[in-house]
Amino acid sequence: MKVTALAGGIGAAKFLLGLQDSTPVDEITIIANTGDDIELYGLRICPDIDTVTYTLAGVVNQATGWGVANDTFACLSSLARYWGPAWFNLGDRDLATHMYRTQQLRSGRSLTEVTDEIRSALGVGPKILPMTDAYAPTTVVTDEGEMHLQEYFVRRKCEPRVRQIRCADPGAAAPGVEQAIKEAAVAIICPSNPFISIGPILATPGVIESLRVTTARVVAITPIVGGRALKGPTAEMLRDLGHEVSSASVARLYREFVDSFVLDNQDANLRSSIEAMGIRVLTTDTVMDSPDDKRRLACEVLDWVTSDAARGGGRLQQ
Amino acid sequence: MKVTALAGGIGAAKFLLGLQDSTPVDEITIIANTGDDIELYGLRICPDIDTVTYTLAGVVNQATGWGVANDTFACLSSLARYWGPAWFNLGDRDLATHMYRTQQLRSGRSLTEVTDEIRSALGVGPKILPMTDAYAPTTVVTDEGEMHLQEYFVRRKCEPRVRQIRCADPGAAAPGVEQAIKEAAVAIICPSNPFISIGPILATPGVIESLRVTTARVVAITPIVGGRALKGPTAEMLRDLGHEVSSASVARLYREFVDSFVLDNQDANLRSSIEAMGIRVLTTDTVMDSPDDKRRLACEVLDWVTSDAARGGGRLQQ
Repeated sequence: MKVTALAGGIGAAKFLLGLQDSTPVDEITIIANTGDDIELYGLRICPDIDTVTYTLAGVVNQATGWGVANDTFACLSSLARYWGPAWFNLGDRDLATHMYRTQQLRSGRSLTEVTDEIRSALGVGPKILPMTDAYAPTTVVTDEGEMHLQEYFVRRKCEPRVRQIRCADPGAAAPGVEQAIKEAAVAIICPSNPFISIGPILATPGVIESLRVTTARVVAITPIVGGRALKGPTAEMLRDLGHEVSSASVARLYREFVDSFVLDNQDANLRSSIEAMGIRVLTTDTVMDSPDDKRRLACEVLDWVTSDAARGGGRLQQ
Repeated sequence: MKVTALAGGIGAAKFLLGLQDSTPVDEITIIANTGDDIELYGLRICPDIDTVTYTLAGVVNQATGWGVANDTFACLSSLARYWGPAWFNLGDRDLATHMYRTQQLRSGRSLTEVTDEIRSALGVGPKILPMTDAYAPTTVVTDEGEMHLQEYFVRRKCEPRVRQIRCADPGAAAPGVEQAIKEAAVAIICPSNPFISIGPILATPGVIESLRVTTARVVAITPIVGGRALKGPTAEMLRDLGHEVSSASVARLYREFVDSFVLDNQDANLRSSIEAMGIRVLTTDTVMDSPDDKRRLACEVLDWVTSDAARGGGRLQQ
């Protein structure tokens, strides 16, 4: 059963670790956000791809959710001698990935090819596709001006008020992206920020169309639990952009292409309002702390959408 | 009194440290070999420039003579995951220099400009000029084929027998190189390998001509003491290329443009044969271990050539 997942960074990676542990890895394709890519120090850095890859490889820094476990920061402190104070953390081991990617891209290879090589070098099983081979960073329009997403997120620590998220048009999806959605039995929108993690993937030409035409069950997992984001600025962005900070707002953003939504037990009261959008709802514990949590959630989601499909379920008729 | 020094790596850097301690730094210009430059991991690495810069900055690894003191090698071990086993050592702190240089070169700046910025960032006083802005690596023709100098030197540990050294033609000297030789009061050929450190500088268009026409005293310091090189493969190269392994052979290589030669006390017996080439000889202790050794040698060399010049000395008449 082919499973395709649209993924941002840390939240997605936790779920994907459970998915990897509960599904044959050669049936999993991950479409990773590259809207948060940034060029710094002459290097092409793909934070979401790397977070997913490192997490599935078991080398991620579990305390932060990004970077490599037990990494050191000697190079970064020396980079500051030349470039001034660093605001984007890059560990010494992590740097090797960016250096390899950058050199390979400069030698004419595509991000799809390099991502696959890095995946393979780190022994990760599931296929990881960048949403696009283009460099098309997302910007955030704030009340202090427009800035690269990482400037807003890391340098400014999400402090400026957000007025608009601008997902760049990358021109085309990477090879295999549309096909992976169309050929999947289950397409999963991971528990990621809908604006800056999933939004850029959806803004990639062909992705929404593929989600609309696929015969896959399309299920989103809430990134909001009890009115708060487990990771990152999803809550702040919902609020700043005029949405209620709730799972129902996320379901509404996705309503035109998801048929199923996974809601946290804490938000069970939102079930009927999401069902009212014509979306089936699974209410369960979506907070993933232990490896067991992750595996259980992945199994439960897959069991639900597939058994539901076997019973002839699909989009609810309103 | 303007002093211009032609320099390779470790041996030169030791002497230059003494020179820096005994001469106003704004009177010193160092013309550094770039024939040993190499591109690895997508980075432009300039080992001789860096050895000189790190040494004069007081941050060099004194145990090895190259790299940064107390450096770590976390990135290099991770690079091996992607590129296979590393044979060229690059410390984490050292990498920052290569990353900065590479990014600046890619953005269109010249090696001369970047070298000066790195010098400045590390607080080094003397001007450091690359011999050329071009990338023109030296190759070594061995009985196992032709290879990049660093492949011969580092990867193969000088094991293949040398048949020829091929200094690439870099097209042009870097801005200021010829002028620095012509305007100097003293031009010093540092105690470096004549083939792979000084040879590429001499092969740079305009350098030998400048040494010939300059009014500077041109003095070379022997890199060979007691028939052995203090550092590197100078002795092996002299032998493989059909020269006697002695200071006299080095003096002979330089005879067309040096008027003075600094010989070690251990080789005092060679004095007359060097003088027979029309070259004045200073015999002294050229082995530099302590900071005092370095300073003393620099002072002694400068005193000798300047007092000698004041007495009306110049090239010996044969």
